[in-house]
Amino acid sequence: MGISLHFANMMTDAIGEVHGITDEELDGLKARGKAIDRDLRERRKAGELPFYELPYQKSEVRNILKKVKKIQDKYDNFVVLGIGGSALGAKALHLALSHPQHNLLPKGKRKDALRLFVADNIDPEGFKALLDIIDPKKTVFNVVSKSGGTAEIIAQFLVVIDLLKKRLGRKMYKNYIIATTDPKKGALREIANREGFLGFSVPEGVGGRFSVFTPVGLLPAAAAGIDIEELLAGAAYMDKQCQVDDLREKPAYIAAALQYLADVNKGKAISVIMPYADRLSGVGDWYCQLWAESLGKRYSRDNEVVNVGQTPVKAIGVTDQHSQLQLYLEGPYNKVVIFIVPKKYKKEVKIPPAYEDIEAVNYLGGHTLNALIKAEQEATELALTKNNRPNWKILLPEINPFSVGQLLYFFEVQTVYAGGLYNINPLDQPGVEEGKRITYRMMGREGF
Amino acid sequence: MGISLHFANMMTDAIGEVHGITDEELDGLKARGKAIDRDLRERRKAGELPFYELPYQKSEVRNILKKVKKIQDKYDNFVVLGIGGSALGAKALHLALSHPQHNLLPKGKRKDALRLFVADNIDPEGFKALLDIIDPKKTVFNVVSKSGGTAEIIAQFLVVIDLLKKRLGRKMYKNYIIATTDPKKGALREIANREGFLGFSVPEGVGGRFSVFTPVGLLPAAAAGIDIEELLAGAAYMDKQCQVDDLREKPAYIAAALQYLADVNKGKAISVIMPYADRLSGVGDWYCQLWAESLGKRYSRDNEVVNVGQTPVKAIGVTDQHSQLQLYLEGPYNKVVIFIVPKKYKKEVKIPPAYEDIEAVNYLGGHTLNALIKAEQEATELALTKNNRPNWKILLPEINPFSVGQLLYFFEVQTVYAGGLYNINPLDQPGVEEGKRITYRMMGREGF
Repeated sequence: MGISLHFANMMTDAIGEVHGITDEELDGLKARGKAIDRDLRERRKAGELPFYELPYQKSEVRNILKKVKKIQDKYDNFVVLGIGGSALGAKALHLALSHPQHNLLPKGKRKDALRLFVADNIDPEGFKALLDIIDPKKTVFNVVSKSGGTAEIIAQFLVVIDLLKKRLGRKMYKNYIIATTDPKKGALREIANREGFLGFSVPEGVGGRFSVFTPVGLLPAAAAGIDIEELLAGAAYMDKQCQVDDLREKPAYIAAALQYLADVNKGKAISVIMPYADRLSGVGDWYCQLWAESLGKRYSRDNEVVNVGQTPVKAIGVTDQHSQLQLYLEGPYNKVVIFIVPKKYKKEVKIPPAYEDIEAVNYLGGHTLNALIKAEQEATELALTKNNRPNWKILLPEINPFSVGQLLYFFEVQTVYAGGLYNINPLDQPGVEEGKRITYRMMGREGF
Repeated sequence: MGISLHFANMMTDAIGEVHGITDEELDGLKARGKAIDRDLRERRKAGELPFYELPYQKSEVRNILKKVKKIQDKYDNFVVLGIGGSALGAKALHLALSHPQHNLLPKGKRKDALRLFVADNIDPEGFKALLDIIDPKKTVFNVVSKSGGTAEIIAQFLVVIDLLKKRLGRKMYKNYIIATTDPKKGALREIANREGFLGFSVPEGVGGRFSVFTPVGLLPAAAAGIDIEELLAGAAYMDKQCQVDDLREKPAYIAAALQYLADVNKGKAISVIMPYADRLSGVGDWYCQLWAESLGKRYSRDNEVVNVGQTPVKAIGVTDQHSQLQLYLEGPYNKVVIFIVPKKYKKEVKIPPAYEDIEAVNYLGGHTLNALIKAEQEATELALTKNNRPNWKILLPEINPFSVGQLLYFFEVQTVYAGGLYNINPLDQPGVEEGKRITYRMMGREGF
């Protein structure tokens, strides 16, 4: 039931010497790789990298499931007020693991699952439109901010709390808010304690983009009916895969090394993530944050100016074959394409024959959409490889909580190890602080 | 009511000599620019570039509006079966100009507008899920394929026609299909003629990615309640702007020249389109196809191998400040950022004061989400500029059919002119043919 990785099309044998990577190049990273691995293991042991342990929080999961049972009885909608790392995990899980038209299903067909909305912007038209279509009396708002002071989330929260007080009265409104934030610090924690909101904690030391397996991602997912125990079991399974001793056997490390070598040695500055599944669109966006914000850094760990970081791009197969593939095949040789392919889709859709006298129609009848999407993925992979465009592939048995848990954990481990190869800190984001300060000044915040 | 363009942050004065462009560089393109302009004008006059004339098809618009009135009376849902150029225009218009939660609004609040779905993939789970939630008796299916033989669309169509025959009977099903395709050629035209489907034409010589102002984009938009006359009036308005004689006064040409110089002279291989509006997410995807598929080419017009083409990336403000901005500010100097900013949002959302004793909350109360998103856009622009990252800005008076019409037409003219600067053919897509042939072979199509 494990996901499997296929790297042949990254190598010189498949795509030639100019763009391909050699075994020698991979071997050349061995000494550094061992040192990075040792460092990560030690820091993990010392509790400095708590994201590694998130698959194993049994009591937190029980707690979430208990609370979710209660809110599912009372409410119809679950609205996440969150942005960036507070939103992308929930969106990724929801899109991947709920019915693809979940929010349009009538209540009966959703069983207990709530409709899930993620308000990840402060666009007044977008935010107002969301408030237009939900009934506040049937909605629970989950305010999510790791720091507890994210401007956008506090602003949304102030709008919502005012609405709730007006619509539900000064006593009742408290039941409609759940706060997910730092266990001790920050404005949101202070408010939650003062008001007595139901609250969840983001474990200390887990940054936003590594928080999908905390209540930040798990609570909304569970509210939408997703099996979060299976999700974490998948993450734990991948953890085990990554703990083998031989570096060349660790899937996430090989993937990181190949991406790094493609970028640094071969000029592949762009990393295209291309799932052949509508459901994995949100996983694509989640990956784009993880890869960009973790690795896009000005300074190395030695304080040299390095300005590194591949630019992640999301494409969806087959859709983007009709949009981006022309560029990928014929444009500059500056990309790696990562396919994510389910071996099996949970539904089969037959293409019934008709108009059999028309040649451009006839060959399709009797096949399935499943066969067609598979053929197109293979054709795209073949065309890229023939054009010496590096690509690799992640095969999922099918898209389910266990495989998605593996996939997300895999990318986290890959990213942290890649940070080591680039010799940067993958856990901070110093660049965005300046913009925040300018915003605070413009909004008249004291001290800015 | 015109959109306006702001290029100061592309120039050396703002971002320094290493990354900025000089007036001399722009002037250096003058002679070529004039030749390209002359060529485009002549080909337009000769009817070889019919996309230019699309804003002026009054009778086609009347025809669309008449048909839409009839289907709005009978149906609830409008489903586009289309992919790439047959889907992205409709999606862009729908997301930009309908209520942001249009499909979740109860019928009464949508007036006559139909719910709009665009099935732009053959993922069996995704396609099946769409069929789960619509009632075929209340749904019109618009099959869109310029060539009339796109494998994905024919496959979807065969699934749908079988469903309709079973559910509605062998007579009635014909009323539930509208075909938009070539006026004369292709499998879909043949089927439409044989069955007597209601049909619309994609004017000859208009490729998929330039078809948003044909029935491909206009019919679904009108069905969803969008004012397509205003949309085309906006496009015509932009056409006029682009017809002034002085090259330096043509907004789309300056934009193309700056993007081209940034790429070719300054190594900015990535073009980030970053609207500060949820509504413009689809416009971003539409731009990504237009820019990638038009300019991503192996051969120049002189048959030299050039492998050119900027890679377009969509980011949404402020959301992606919390995902991509770290990379944009600190990563490699390989990007141009294009802001698209509405001067005014159609809604104002007040941030009511509360918890005024908490400093991280207090400064926001009394402002509006409108002020906050504006401050964040300006802060991001300032931070990029201070870090010598080239960026330019399109200001929209507000997001409405007239301004969106301008915007889309602007990008089309920019793209065609950029094709001239790169000396490639922006209207073909030879690279994707190979993949199609491989797919046909795998599916057992005769002759492949």
